[in-house]
Amino acid sequence: MNNEKVWTAGLVVIGDEILSGRTADKNIAQIASWLQVQGIRLAEVRVVADDMDAIAGAVNALRTAYDYLFTTGGIGPTHDDITVDAIAAALGVDVVIHPQARAMLEDYYKDKPGGLNDARLRMARVPDGADLIPNAMSGAPGIRHGNIFLMAGVPAITAQMLHGLTGQLEGGAPLMVETVGCWTAESEVAEILREVEKAHEGCQIGSYPFFREGRTGANFVIRSTSRDVLESAVDTLCEALAETGRDFTPGGI
Amino acid sequence: MNNEKVWTAGLVVIGDEILSGRTADKNIAQIASWLQVQGIRLAEVRVVADDMDAIAGAVNALRTAYDYLFTTGGIGPTHDDITVDAIAAALGVDVVIHPQARAMLEDYYKDKPGGLNDARLRMARVPDGADLIPNAMSGAPGIRHGNIFLMAGVPAITAQMLHGLTGQLEGGAPLMVETVGCWTAESEVAEILREVEKAHEGCQIGSYPFFREGRTGANFVIRSTSRDVLESAVDTLCEALAETGRDFTPGGI
Repeated sequence: MNNEKVWTAGLVVIGDEILSGRTADKNIAQIASWLQVQGIRLAEVRVVADDMDAIAGAVNALRTAYDYLFTTGGIGPTHDDITVDAIAAALGVDVVIHPQARAMLEDYYKDKPGGLNDARLRMARVPDGADLIPNAMSGAPGIRHGNIFLMAGVPAITAQMLHGLTGQLEGGAPLMVETVGCWTAESEVAEILREVEKAHEGCQIGSYPFFREGRTGANFVIRSTSRDVLESAVDTLCEALAETGRDFTPGGI
Repeated sequence: MNNEKVWTAGLVVIGDEILSGRTADKNIAQIASWLQVQGIRLAEVRVVADDMDAIAGAVNALRTAYDYLFTTGGIGPTHDDITVDAIAAALGVDVVIHPQARAMLEDYYKDKPGGLNDARLRMARVPDGADLIPNAMSGAPGIRHGNIFLMAGVPAITAQMLHGLTGQLEGGAPLMVETVGCWTAESEVAEILREVEKAHEGCQIGSYPFFREGRTGANFVIRSTSRDVLESAVDTLCEALAETGRDFTPGGI
């Protein structure tokens, strides 16, 4: 029995390029994996267009529903980068130039063609009251305002910002995960999965079928915040699969 | 000036495997691209856990906000596949066995080990009043109920279901897209982008920076439902980039 607080986060992915299908999002998986290590569960994601009302609506819904809210996208120098404005509007605060962000950008652009022009200075704008999240890659920082974290759309830059935040957010016990793979149609072992999950409190078992080399298989992913519960569930599942005469692969296929 | 109705869709991606970061979603980009060809704009995506209330809440929000609602995931044979139940609950209808789905599954499994067992028969369950969307790949059909389309979590199966739906949904003029690439920091040409967009009504320009081979570049993606507006915007942008002495690449880099 685990009565610890479960820490949760929401994520708002901002960008027409995702909704048009032009760009396949990589930030959901990246942020989800990072949050797991921090002991925080990603509870919901919304992908919205580059639109003030859509961004503000999603941000206000998720920042109140979960402990933390992350956003990706829309913090660059061009006209379609409106995340700061939309979040300031959602919070009812002004947009201001952050002096430290300005200094970072002045330094970054001092030897580059064009210098710190108006477009680049847009990247020093923050909702009033915000702190910065360092980013070694492009000079433009991420932004933190209360429980809201504004990250870049470019996954490599967001990776830098996450690195800067690692270990700084309060979380709970990390969810531990084990995978068991089996060359079987998941539909042949569905009852086994259901029973093992039911017998292990707080344990979740997901079933992820695949077709590979002309064969049907599935990975069963078992999750728990308790090492003991997790190990017992894995052992019980492997025993039950063995009883049916199936080969299984701890660690997954 | 374009007074045509803009057709819109929402998408609910269902699955703990996406929120845990275990699986990188591929259905958002796949469905978004397919919708563009049908003349339907993907307006919002929500990713939710395998949880009845979370699914029903997202489904009810998006099915009323947009013309069409798609879901992916949670329609397989295992205990964590609860999409049909959650959507039936959201709609206030019963879950029933669809006779045609049952027949399709009986046929598909007649020569396979285990036959049509209880778990597999789960895949014939639909919200009362639903029609089927054929799927040549796995025997289990997708499900249509009014403006709601339930697709698989496995991207290759969803591709089959989309193929079965191609040309069947009412949409508007497809959004046409052109890309212009340029080896420049986007922040050096931000003002040009803003002005070209402003001068072309109903035209959207997105700027997507990248770092490649140690150099900074960006692709500018211009969208319009009018071929004339699109061509004029592309020409104006290319002329403006040429005036600054920059090389640009129609079609993108």
